[in-house]
Amino acid sequence: MPRLTEYADMTPRARAVVEGIAKGRNVDPARINNVWKALAKHPAVMEQFAGEMKAAMAPGKLDALTKELIYLAVSVANQCDYCIASHGTMAKAKGMTDEMHEEFMAVVLAAQKGNKIAVAYRVPVDDAFQE
Amino acid sequence: MPRLTEYADMTPRARAVVEGIAKGRNVDPARINNVWKALAKHPAVMEQFAGEMKAAMAPGKLDALTKELIYLAVSVANQCDYCIASHGTMAKAKGMTDEMHEEFMAVVLAAQKGNKIAVAYRVPVDDAFQE
Amino acid sequence: MPRLTEYADMTPRARAVVEGIAKGRNVDPARINNVWKALAKHPAVMEQFAGEMKAAMAPGKLDALTKELIYLAVSVANQCDYCIASHGTMAKAKGMTDEMHEEFMAVVLAAQKGNKIAVAYRVPVDDAFQE
Amino acid sequence: MPRLTEYADMTPRARAVVEGIAKGRNVDPARINNVWKALAKHPAVMEQFAGEMKAAMAPGKLDALTKELIYLAVSVANQCDYCIASHGTMAKAKGMTDEMHEEFMAVVLAAQKGNKIAVAYRVPVDDAFQE
Amino acid sequence: MPRLTEYADMTPRARAVVEGIAKGRNVDPARINNVWKALAKHPAVMEQFAGEMKAAMAPGKLDALTKELIYLAVSVANQCDYCIASHGTMAKAKGMTDEMHEEFMAVVLAAQKGNKIAVAYRVPVDDAFQE
Amino acid sequence: MPRLTEYADMTPRARAVVEGIAKGRNVDPARINNVWKALAKHPAVMEQFAGEMKAAMAPGKLDALTKELIYLAVSVANQCDYCIASHGTMAKAKGMTDEMHEEFMAVVLAAQKGNKIAVAYRVPVDDAFQE
Repeated sequence: MPRLTEYADMTPRARAVVEGIAKGRNVDPARINNVWKALAKHPAVMEQFAGEMKAAMAPGKLDALTKELIYLAVSVANQCDYCIASHGTMAKAKGMTDEMHEEFMAVVLAAQKGNKIAVAYRVPVDDAFQE
Repeated sequence: MPRLTEYADMTPRARAVVEGIAKGRNVDPARINNVWKALAKHPAVMEQFAGEMKAAMAPGKLDALTKELIYLAVSVANQCDYCIASHGTMAKAKGMTDEMHEEFMAVVLAAQKGNKIAVAYRVPVDDAFQE
Repeated sequence: MPRLTEYADMTPRARAVVEGIAKGRNVDPARINNVWKALAKHPAVMEQFAGEMKAAMAPGKLDALTKELIYLAVSVANQCDYCIASHGTMAKAKGMTDEMHEEFMAVVLAAQKGNKIAVAYRVPVDDAFQE
Repeated sequence: MPRLTEYADMTPRARAVVEGIAKGRNVDPARINNVWKALAKHPAVMEQFAGEMKAAMAPGKLDALTKELIYLAVSVANQCDYCIASHGTMAKAKGMTDEMHEEFMAVVLAAQKGNKIAVAYRVPVDDAFQE
Repeated sequence: MPRLTEYADMTPRARAVVEGIAKGRNVDPARINNVWKALAKHPAVMEQFAGEMKAAMAPGKLDALTKELIYLAVSVANQCDYCIASHGTMAKAKGMTDEMHEEFMAVVLAAQKGNKIAVAYRVPVDDAFQE
Repeated sequence: MPRLTEYADMTPRARAVVEGIAKGRNVDPARINNVWKALAKHPAVMEQFAGEMKAAMAPGKLDALTKELIYLAVSVANQCDYCIASHGTMAKAKGMTDEMHEEFMAVVLAAQKGNKIAVAYRVPVDDAFQE
């Protein structure tokens, strides 16, 4: 298993990132998710990713659950186990029911099929889709 | 370019699939998208995919635009040019504004980054995400 | 378009690779496929790939068409347009009928779905499959 | 680990799917593979996938082992550990010997290489492969 | 083809990003690469990506050419045609010779093979690599 | 877990490959990495991969560490856990410091983003990159 750095053992720069995240979620920084413990040695990557996540996931024209479902769809397509586990949990926390999850999966699987059909049959893009 | 079979030249079995799709969208079957013209020689694949798409994309607990965004997210992650062009157009037709597209892209790119970070740092799944 | 080096303009080392391939297929080396024209400046890659392809695709316990279908399945999964076009043509030359192609596609699409289901639901490997 | 629903605890709709699969394989439904236990809460996905698998994997113009090898090739290209473990075992059950597995791997690896060469050298599709 | 926004037609916010890039490369902003023209409608994505690229690609402990080769390796693995074309050109501008390109390709192809072997044979990580 | 064949139990053909690798690294063949133990039943794949790795990774116009970083970049893009663990360790052994690793990750993540932007916005290749 990769070495995880606990909050108590992080450098001030890493702690600052963790504290910002923990505050935003109203949780104890000592209970931060493993991804941040794994990144602790690389503070520049950590700061960059924390900033990007905060900006991307904040509700805007798209609501928080829709954004989680988009994030989860990418994670399933890319087959990232950690991301499916963590963002699946977060999607539930933001309101994804079992029925919504089933519909989500049906769309993801249809998209997978559509993607491979388009590629395997070498389908040219319709003029109507060129813009 | 792969051979496309125009509606007028399709077998009755393929025409039936195209007519079902065209009717559902209230369009002329002769103007069906290229993906169906490319599939015309493989009616079993065609019927299976048409049925799956119809079931998956129908509004349910998730609305039609959310489903398009999930489909599009998978297509970007998988890098399917035809699917990005076609479902990007469909998402706009269902209400995706330029601002929503920008937010969508920000989430997709954050997810890409999160996926690769989790994998590259070999992050173990938190107990809180095991369920 | 990337620069292609025609047979007449290749170095002796590149020509030797092309001649070996052309002889094995009983065709004119001047009509070799584009992939070899694109590789002509990198003879070590060319020799390595030509040797590996010859060894891998020769009929053995698996016949030539089965090997083409395996090659094509990987190419569809990886979404390589050139490879789908070239090995799709080769598969037909080795006996793949339209019906076989339709069955092939059905298996590829079922596998795509099975792959994403296993990952998205985080399915643990059965003891019976651990060996 | 994700929650698996044992056969005894499944809803009637999920049990019906499992019984259909178990009957076709002549096995005890209580010993069904994990993938079906993981899907039990999503009966629509389950029914859709079971139907698609049954149709796709039935021997036709391509025999059962060839279909397993195509399925396995997609699973290796997509790097799905569960699928490689399960369909690797099934391929052996359907007659894949160690020698055949070695040949299979040689083709898969040659295809991987060919895919990346075509993309990295940006090889244009030959006219002879356009059809 | 997707709509590209020329520099002259960009909003002030987009122009500012382009001017920053053009200045850093000492080129005319009107001749900026297509990727920036395609992003012009999404200034937040544009600013975020421009900032990340500038920080990531600046020479540091790794020199500029090594960074280009790492970028190019990811692009080949992901099969991004635009990225291979653009960063291939940039790598040459930064000193990649034909011999270096051939060595680069040999490593990329060996890595592709190693990746698929590790996955296909389900190789467990050695204790010596767990840290 | 897949069956690993220990050095003492390998066939002479497999032992010869392992001995060649162990000699080159000046280590005990009994302590060879798991990937070789997993391949032991498939000597042709083993010989082919050992030969390709030796040729690809030998220092040439690119030094040994640069080659490791290219290998690692491909492995992260492909999400191969075994390869990231093993080649991450090897990269450190060849001189990759924590600072270099952080820069490496920044480039890999920027490339991931660039790849998806180019695809999602369907960016056409600039004339200047066509050669």
